[in-house]
Amino acid sequence: MTIKFCSQCGSGKIESALPPGDDRAREICADCGYIHYVNPKVVVGSIPVWGEQILLCKRAIEPRYGKWTLPAGFMEEGETLAEGAKRETLEEAGARISIEQLYASYSLPEISQVYVLFLARLDDLNYLAGSESLEVKLFHEHEIPWDELAFVAISEALKRYFADRVKGSYTPHFSDLRRAKIR
Amino acid sequence: MTIKFCSQCGSGKIESALPPGDDRAREICADCGYIHYVNPKVVVGSIPVWGEQILLCKRAIEPRYGKWTLPAGFMEEGETLAEGAKRETLEEAGARISIEQLYASYSLPEISQVYVLFLARLDDLNYLAGSESLEVKLFHEHEIPWDELAFVAISEALKRYFADRVKGSYTPHFSDLRRAKIR
Repeated sequence: MTIKFCSQCGSGKIESALPPGDDRAREICADCGYIHYVNPKVVVGSIPVWGEQILLCKRAIEPRYGKWTLPAGFMEEGETLAEGAKRETLEEAGARISIEQLYASYSLPEISQVYVLFLARLDDLNYLAGSESLEVKLFHEHEIPWDELAFVAISEALKRYFADRVKGSYTPHFSDLRRAKIR
Repeated sequence: MTIKFCSQCGSGKIESALPPGDDRAREICADCGYIHYVNPKVVVGSIPVWGEQILLCKRAIEPRYGKWTLPAGFMEEGETLAEGAKRETLEEAGARISIEQLYASYSLPEISQVYVLFLARLDDLNYLAGSESLEVKLFHEHEIPWDELAFVAISEALKRYFADRVKGSYTPHFSDLRRAKIR
């Protein structure tokens, strides 16, 4: 159970039951019948490129405090994927970007997240660590701290990016990242 | 407000307030401090292809009862994007598919939804209307009921698919669908 009380009537009688016509149990209020749906969350972010370099953020928050990541975070109500990626990049790296293309879509079913990452150009060099970052820095490929990356989705996207750069063509891709690979 | 009571402690004192370090107001319980985040939902689905034909479903549920759609629905906890697309295709069209590629990502910010649609091959012709469909049918391009499609995301994806088919190359794409275009 993710809830203890009904958000609509305040009743504490929450049951796990199959709604009519549904194919799986939901958390349902036994008093008012309200169904509390829970759905996967979208994490949006960017690969901010400046020439041959990529902008990474050192995390100032848990999980993975002190590890490096691409600017990314939970998509918010009322925004588009691209707006979310720009907002997160501004919040975490103080950086303005221009979106080039949707690049990576990763499903992380065990934690019910979907990552959507955009390739983007950094508009200028006026970046600055936001409150969720200890440090923000440009990295050449040989400088990427592979063993100090925060999440497997980030290393997947960066590996793919550098491989595509050699080929000179950036193909949107999707894949599934399961527990064995989730750090 | 989307909630009237705290799902964790049952208190009716729900306030809209800015949590420390956050950039927007959230629904917060004034008694226990629990923050009730709300995030966009992902709609996953497929474009099921059989030779030159596409499989569409006639909706047996609101909204857009009686209109035609691609098999798609809300992504569930614990599944991948591709698993969700296959599940929805099986539920709504009774059809088994093989995923070919991620094809379309649409943001609908006004209703806080993200559509993710896959190109897929229909495995066989044993499709059958599920409980959410009145009818399931294969359409050639010239037979598509353009004026009777349920959602703009569906018509966008189909238009793009037929244009790409002429070119012989299917490129994943993303775009934003705003109110003026949302039917």
